[in-house]
Amino acid sequence: MCAAPAAELGITLSVLAEAPDASAALVIPSAPVGAHGDVDAVLAFAAECDVVTFDHEHVPADVLAALAEAGAVMHPTPQALVFAQDKLEMRERLTALGVPCPRWARALTVDEVTAFGDEVGWPVVAKTPRGGYDGKGVRVVASGEELHDWLDRASAEDSPLLLEEKVPFTREIAVLLARSPSGQAAAWPVVETVQTDGICTEVIAPAPDLDPDLAARATEAGLRIAGELGVTGVLAVEMFELPGGEFVVNELAMRPHNSGHWSMDGAVTGQFEQHLRAVLDLPLGSPRPRHPWTVMGNVLGGHHTELYPAYRHVMARDPEIKAHLYGKGVRPGRKIGHVNVSGDSLTDLRARARHAADYIEGAVTE
Amino acid sequence: MCAAPAAELGITLSVLAEAPDASAALVIPSAPVGAHGDVDAVLAFAAECDVVTFDHEHVPADVLAALAEAGAVMHPTPQALVFAQDKLEMRERLTALGVPCPRWARALTVDEVTAFGDEVGWPVVAKTPRGGYDGKGVRVVASGEELHDWLDRASAEDSPLLLEEKVPFTREIAVLLARSPSGQAAAWPVVETVQTDGICTEVIAPAPDLDPDLAARATEAGLRIAGELGVTGVLAVEMFELPGGEFVVNELAMRPHNSGHWSMDGAVTGQFEQHLRAVLDLPLGSPRPRHPWTVMGNVLGGHHTELYPAYRHVMARDPEIKAHLYGKGVRPGRKIGHVNVSGDSLTDLRARARHAADYIEGAVTE
Repeated sequence: MCAAPAAELGITLSVLAEAPDASAALVIPSAPVGAHGDVDAVLAFAAECDVVTFDHEHVPADVLAALAEAGAVMHPTPQALVFAQDKLEMRERLTALGVPCPRWARALTVDEVTAFGDEVGWPVVAKTPRGGYDGKGVRVVASGEELHDWLDRASAEDSPLLLEEKVPFTREIAVLLARSPSGQAAAWPVVETVQTDGICTEVIAPAPDLDPDLAARATEAGLRIAGELGVTGVLAVEMFELPGGEFVVNELAMRPHNSGHWSMDGAVTGQFEQHLRAVLDLPLGSPRPRHPWTVMGNVLGGHHTELYPAYRHVMARDPEIKAHLYGKGVRPGRKIGHVNVSGDSLTDLRARARHAADYIEGAVTE
Repeated sequence: MCAAPAAELGITLSVLAEAPDASAALVIPSAPVGAHGDVDAVLAFAAECDVVTFDHEHVPADVLAALAEAGAVMHPTPQALVFAQDKLEMRERLTALGVPCPRWARALTVDEVTAFGDEVGWPVVAKTPRGGYDGKGVRVVASGEELHDWLDRASAEDSPLLLEEKVPFTREIAVLLARSPSGQAAAWPVVETVQTDGICTEVIAPAPDLDPDLAARATEAGLRIAGELGVTGVLAVEMFELPGGEFVVNELAMRPHNSGHWSMDGAVTGQFEQHLRAVLDLPLGSPRPRHPWTVMGNVLGGHHTELYPAYRHVMARDPEIKAHLYGKGVRPGRKIGHVNVSGDSLTDLRARARHAADYIEGAVTE
């Protein structure tokens, strides 16, 4: 999704593609094939780039170290990226900064889990510090025993789990911003993210009925995190809104993020354009929304393997729907696209976005 | 500029590029090199395409005939395209349809020019029916003798010139619309186009202070032309607004057109997305403007050959400017990019668009 703004901005984009038919390789002329964990492939790729950035957090530390050793310019830097790669590093750092977090602890044993749960209340949330996404690597457990398999592996690897209290949140919100190496930063309005079974299904921009003071404090926290951690590029700070006007940070992502897809059509500067501007240290664009409301609906893999007929129907039914399909193979539950729709009536927009996403998925047939 | 919406829509785009470093080849993975006048190259290219469309009007008739013979699906069709390729064919057909045109005539001799000028008033406008653009192929003459060189060639080729009365227009406007093979059509608001030395330098969407009745009649004429001529894809109808609420058609273009560049950022559906939808017979998107006003400023080649530093300055000065650079070599007067800016205050937007375009060109330095 960086391909479109790169073309508009006159930026030559290359992608290290996992396969010749990877989504990105379909739209980017320069797409050598290689694995993100293959040091030689990544080094050869980076040697041709002025700036290297990342579209996920899973590039291994040894690859990042080899890139740094070779003098590659990376944004975000490995020093910042670790806080999006490792949830224990993130919790430790944010706590030190005084950023509101759920109570948390490290655990290698059932006893440590039991002690934490007895202190903060059951159930508790257990997370593998690295590698999780879309609800993977997360469990909600009512006892230490339920975690014995994860704890066995954690002990064997001497790599503790992250435990967090299960906070009584009223909804999930996200602060999305970009920061450049020069230190310029720009934040989009705080959005509401709606999760279903651990997967984001809908984003509403801006978050409806959000207390302006909370919005300001959440945005300030996001900007402070970006500055203190030295983030460059887009940063998404996922948060829980709590009763009483408070919030805690849930997770960080240092890349264009699902919570910002609305901005592609709903803001003067979309997150993919802004990420390119930021990592290249170009002046940032305006994050101003173009419309009172924009609703994003994720399209998950469903019953259709051939999306085209449904897509055509949706285009005919609603000429204002902006559908973005990713060119990925359809697997049940996989994010394969999203739709955006903007306007004045939030109720209307939510219904239209949901219908379009459901229809493309095959969850509804009329 | 079709590359970005093609990626979003999941359409696989190929371009027959005039050179490996042509603008389009920089952003489209499938870009075989070949000349648009080379029958074999065009046929080989078209054999791999479901639908063939055109980004200019200069594909020769024999190439179009060979494509038709080979069964290539073309949109617009050669039968429609001829009215954008040949201004005499266009004048004859529009006049037969009763669409308002300037008075016009064919001419092969000085006497014919003299007779026409004496009838409609001097000076008159002379045009070569094919191959002109951006003021090329157009002369305003005060006597038949001034045209003797063109007339000598026209006579030798038995290919008459087009003569038109010089209408006392108050400004230039344009109707931009798209029409699909199924017959669905959608028109953007009528825009004002500002020309300097025969080259469009600014477009204001919608045209300020346009009489709503004139806007409706102009749009109706555009839709009627599209339907009667069987146009598929984007059609631009350039018009002169006359005193007294009338208009005449100046020229036709059957492709995304400079007068529609504002729509890339200013409308729910931009012209490049709409052209793709139309030629593929997908349902058309909404042409609704996203903002009260959008102003487009063309960037012409000027003093800078390296645009990047100026571009960076413009981005920093105005975070709402959307600059689109084409990746073309800089030659004085060549269209090398454009800027769009949208908002509520037309005076403000015009100043900002003009400044940004001028600064990138090098015409102003602060």
